[in-house]
Amino acid sequence: MTTPLIRRFARLFAPLFALLLIACGPAAAAERVERWGMHEIVLKGKDAGNPFIDLELTATFKRGAERYQPEGFYDGNGTYRVRFMPPSAGEWTWTTHSNHPDLDGKSGSLTVVEGTNKGPVRVANVHHFAHADGTPFRPFGTTIYEWAFQSEAKKRETLATLQKAPFNKARMLAVPPWKPRYIDGPDKLTQFPFVGTSRDDFDFSRFNPAYFHSLERDVKRLSDLGIQVDLILFRPYDKGQWGFDTTSDAVNQRFVRYMVARFAAFQNIWWSLANENSYIRHLTDEDFDRYFQIVQRYDPYGHLRSIHNADRIYDYNKPWVTHVSLQYYNAVKVFGVSPMLRDMYRKPIVHDEINYEGNSPSRWGQLSGEELTRRFWVALVGGAYATHGEVLENGWISGGGHLAGTSPERIGFLRKIVEAGPKGGLAPIDQLFVMNAAGQAGEYYLYYFSDDKPTAFPFVLPVKELRKGMKFKADIIDTWNMTVTPVPETFEIGEPPRYRVADVKNRVIALPGKPYMALRIQRVGDMPKSAPKQAPGAIVEEEL
Amino acid sequence: MTTPLIRRFARLFAPLFALLLIACGPAAAAERVERWGMHEIVLKGKDAGNPFIDLELTATFKRGAERYQPEGFYDGNGTYRVRFMPPSAGEWTWTTHSNHPDLDGKSGSLTVVEGTNKGPVRVANVHHFAHADGTPFRPFGTTIYEWAFQSEAKKRETLATLQKAPFNKARMLAVPPWKPRYIDGPDKLTQFPFVGTSRDDFDFSRFNPAYFHSLERDVKRLSDLGIQVDLILFRPYDKGQWGFDTTSDAVNQRFVRYMVARFAAFQNIWWSLANENSYIRHLTDEDFDRYFQIVQRYDPYGHLRSIHNADRIYDYNKPWVTHVSLQYYNAVKVFGVSPMLRDMYRKPIVHDEINYEGNSPSRWGQLSGEELTRRFWVALVGGAYATHGEVLENGWISGGGHLAGTSPERIGFLRKIVEAGPKGGLAPIDQLFVMNAAGQAGEYYLYYFSDDKPTAFPFVLPVKELRKGMKFKADIIDTWNMTVTPVPETFEIGEPPRYRVADVKNRVIALPGKPYMALRIQRVGDMPKSAPKQAPGAIVEEEL
Repeated sequence: MTTPLIRRFARLFAPLFALLLIACGPAAAAERVERWGMHEIVLKGKDAGNPFIDLELTATFKRGAERYQPEGFYDGNGTYRVRFMPPSAGEWTWTTHSNHPDLDGKSGSLTVVEGTNKGPVRVANVHHFAHADGTPFRPFGTTIYEWAFQSEAKKRETLATLQKAPFNKARMLAVPPWKPRYIDGPDKLTQFPFVGTSRDDFDFSRFNPAYFHSLERDVKRLSDLGIQVDLILFRPYDKGQWGFDTTSDAVNQRFVRYMVARFAAFQNIWWSLANENSYIRHLTDEDFDRYFQIVQRYDPYGHLRSIHNADRIYDYNKPWVTHVSLQYYNAVKVFGVSPMLRDMYRKPIVHDEINYEGNSPSRWGQLSGEELTRRFWVALVGGAYATHGEVLENGWISGGGHLAGTSPERIGFLRKIVEAGPKGGLAPIDQLFVMNAAGQAGEYYLYYFSDDKPTAFPFVLPVKELRKGMKFKADIIDTWNMTVTPVPETFEIGEPPRYRVADVKNRVIALPGKPYMALRIQRVGDMPKSAPKQAPGAIVEEEL
Repeated sequence: MTTPLIRRFARLFAPLFALLLIACGPAAAAERVERWGMHEIVLKGKDAGNPFIDLELTATFKRGAERYQPEGFYDGNGTYRVRFMPPSAGEWTWTTHSNHPDLDGKSGSLTVVEGTNKGPVRVANVHHFAHADGTPFRPFGTTIYEWAFQSEAKKRETLATLQKAPFNKARMLAVPPWKPRYIDGPDKLTQFPFVGTSRDDFDFSRFNPAYFHSLERDVKRLSDLGIQVDLILFRPYDKGQWGFDTTSDAVNQRFVRYMVARFAAFQNIWWSLANENSYIRHLTDEDFDRYFQIVQRYDPYGHLRSIHNADRIYDYNKPWVTHVSLQYYNAVKVFGVSPMLRDMYRKPIVHDEINYEGNSPSRWGQLSGEELTRRFWVALVGGAYATHGEVLENGWISGGGHLAGTSPERIGFLRKIVEAGPKGGLAPIDQLFVMNAAGQAGEYYLYYFSDDKPTAFPFVLPVKELRKGMKFKADIIDTWNMTVTPVPETFEIGEPPRYRVADVKNRVIALPGKPYMALRIQRVGDMPKSAPKQAPGAIVEEEL
C-alpha cells in the first residue's frame, strides 16, 4: 500500500516527473538511447508491504561479453524502475530478476548509438581526470550546498548563472541542513529523502519519491550545462532537529544503496560520502569505510568516490577512494604542499574548500577575490585542483542565485590557460627546489609568482628532460587583469649543468613588478638530436 | 659446524664481546638487572647444520601475570642467546623452548631492580613521545648513517662529539652503503651482517656474529649517552655490488627476525624499516607491510616503528607504523604543513630529513646554519619534530667525527626552550589562521617569525581557552643569538570576541626588526573565575 502522502506527492509532481523521463532519455518503451545516456526500465506491480525495504530487483544488461547488473528501486505509486547507463554503442538486451512476481523475468532490448555524451569522469594519468571517451576533464568546481532545496525561480536563476560561469563541478548536499524554512516552506514536500509530515516525524523506513524526482531533475539540468555533480550523501548540519545525522547503520546503508540505484546511471554524478565528516559525531571512519564499499559494490560504472573532511582527515589512501577532496586551507596558501599530497596519495588532489570570497562574519568566508584567485593558482601550479565558493550578501554557497564576486572571471581565465596546457595535466617538475612551477618537463612550464612583485625572471629552467639547443617562447600573464603578453625573444637552452640550465645568452625576462603575475614557457621548433640530460629524474636524490 | 671464518671472528672480537656483556647488563650467570636493562641467557650447544636457519629458540619470562617470550638466536661458535628487557621490578623466572635438545627446557630466575633507566620511548599524547616511565622525550635527532662502520678511533671521536652535542636520537644504517673501503678496509670483518669473504661472495644463509658484536657495542655506547638509535634495516645504496638490496623475501624476513632477536632488548632502539624506501627498486610497499608486521610480532616491547621515504611516500596510516619519519623538505620550509600532517596521521610527525647544513655539491647538503635552524623552528611550531644533518668537509652524515656547523648550538638552544615548555608537548592552537604559533591554549604560546623582521607584536591571542582577566608574561627570543629577553609588562586578557582577544590596554610588544626572532608567552598568576570562551574549539567551523 502507499500512504496518502506519497499519492499526493505523485499527483503533485507528475508533470516534473514526466519532464524527468524525457530529460533522462527514452523510457522503457523507447528503443534508442545515446551512449552514456540513461535507459530506464519502468515496471508496474503491486506494492504490498514496504517495497522500499523488502524489494529485490536487478536487471542484467548484456551486449556480447559486456554485462552490467544495476539495482532497481521502488518509486512509489506501484511503479518500479531499473536505470542503466550504456557504456558502449550497439544492441543491448536486458532481463529482470526480482523477489516480486510482477517484476521478475521481464526482458527487452535497446539500441545504443554514439552521440555527443563524453561519458562519466574517471581518474586519468594518476593525478588528473578525463571523461570515459578520453577527453581531459579539469575540475573547476563551485559550491552550492543547498541550491536544490530552493524555489524553482531561484533554481532557474542559479542555472542561468552557472551557464555563464566558468565552473564545471558543483558540490551540493543530498539532504538539506536544518533550517526551519525547509520543513515549513512551500517546497517542504520535495526537500527530504524520507517520508515526513513534520520536523519530529520522519519515517526512515520509507523514501519520498517526490524528493528524488525533484533532485534527479536538478542533477539532469546541471548535466545539460556540462556540470559534474559532487553529491554529498551525509552531512552534520542537523542541529539535533530531524535526526538525519543520527540515523541507524541499517538506515544509512539502505539510503546509500537507494541513492546509488537512482543516481548511478546519471553520467555526471560524483559520490561525496560526507561533508565535514568528523562533525557527524556518531559516524566513525569505519562507518564510512562500509558506506564507501556499498557505493563501490552497487555502482556498476565506478563513478568517482571521495569524502570531505573537517578536523579529522579520512585516510584517502584507502582503495575505495578515487581522489582527495580536502579541506585544509594552509595547503593552498603556500607553495609546495599539493606536490606532497600527490606523492602521499598518488591520486588526484582536489582542494574542495579553500575558504570563500565574501564578507561573512565567519572567517571561512572573508577572502578577497584576489586571495581566492591566488589560492586557485597555488593549487594548480602544485599539480592539484581547487573549488570556488562565495558568501557575499547573495549567499551563493548556500542557495545559489547570482554571483557577485570578482574571482569567478579570473578562475575562468585560469581554466582557459590550464585547458590549453599539456593534455596530461600540470605536474610539478622540480617541486622540492622550484616550488612555484608546474607543467610538462621539456615542453611546458607555468610559473606563478603569487603576491611577490618580481621585476625580472632570468631564463633558467629545471634540467629535467632539457637538452642543448631546445628553443622556448614565453608569455607574461597577468592573472588579475587577465592579459597574456608574448615575450618577443625566443630562448635557447645551453649546456645543462647538474640542476638548472639557462638560456645560451643568459637572457632575462622583464616583469612589471606587480603581484599575481605568471609566466608561461613553451617549447617551439624542432627537437634537437642531442640526448636529454636525465638527472634528476627522481624528486629527491640518493644521499649515499 | 662453524666456518673457520666465524671462529676467526669470534677469537678476534672476544674482548669487545666481553665488554658488550658487561655493558649490556649481567649475563645469564648474574641474578640482578636494572628495570629496562638487559638480561641475557647464554647457552652452549652443538651447532650441526645451520643454526642461523634451523634454530627455534624462545624463552618465557614470567612475573605474576606478566609474560614475555622473546626469540633467541645463534651467535656462532656453539653459543646461543636469549635477551630480555625486563619491564618491571621484582622476581622473574624463565624457561627455554627449543627444537635443539641442548637448549630446551632450561630455566632460571633474575631479580629486577629499579634504577636510573627511563625505559624505551613510546608515543605519548598522540603527537609526542615519552619514555616508558613517563618522562617526556622530545626527539632532536642527527644523522650519522655510516658511523658504525668507521675505525674505532673515528667512532670514539663521534661519541665524544655526541657527548657535547644537543642530539638525543641518531639515524644510522644497519648495512653500509656500497663503498670499496668497507669491503677492502681493515674493519671488513665487522662491516657486514652476512658472512662474506669478498664483494662477490656473501652467504645470505649465515649471519656474521662479529658484525653484530660490533654494532651492539655501538648501540650500547649511544645508549650510555642517552641517545636513541633510529636503526635503518634496509637501504638502496648498493649500486648493484653486494646484492644487499636484491636479497630474496626469505632472506629479508630472516634478517628482520634476527635483528629483532638481537636488538629488541636494547632500551634505545627505534626500528626504521628503510631509508629512501622507494629507491630499493625490488621492494614494494606490500613487502614493507610484511616486514613491519614481523617486527611488530617478534619485538615483545613494541619499540617505535617507521619508514623513511624518497619519492613514493609509504602510508603512515597503517596500524603498524607508530610515527611519521618523513623526507619532504617543503613541509618544513613553510608554516602550516606539520599541523596538516598531524591531522592526517594522528601520530607523531618527525621530519627526519630536511636537507643538511653544508657545502656539498649535492643540493640536499647546501643549507646555511641559519636555514637549517629556521626549518627546525618551523617544524616545532607546527607541533612536529626535525632531524639534523651536516655535510661540511667533515662529512658528518656519513662517518660522524666532529661537527663544524653553526646549527647544532642553536638546535640545542631550541631543545632547551621546548623541554621547558608544556609537558604535553607543543600543539598548534589555531593553525588554519595563526600558522606560526604552537603551545598549549590558555597557558603557553610560542610564536616564531622565521625570516620576517617584525618590529612589533600587538598582544593578541587566539581565543581558545582564554578568559577575561587571565594574565601573561612574555619573553623575546633571538633564536640565532640565543638570547631570551623578558618583556617587563604583564599582559591581561580582555573580553574575548569571536576569534582573537587582545590585551585590555591593547599593548604592543616592540621587536627588534631582525630575522629569526621568536616570542614566548606564558600565563602567570591565579586563574580567574569566569568561564572560558570555548569557540572555536574545532580546527574549522561548521559552515551551514
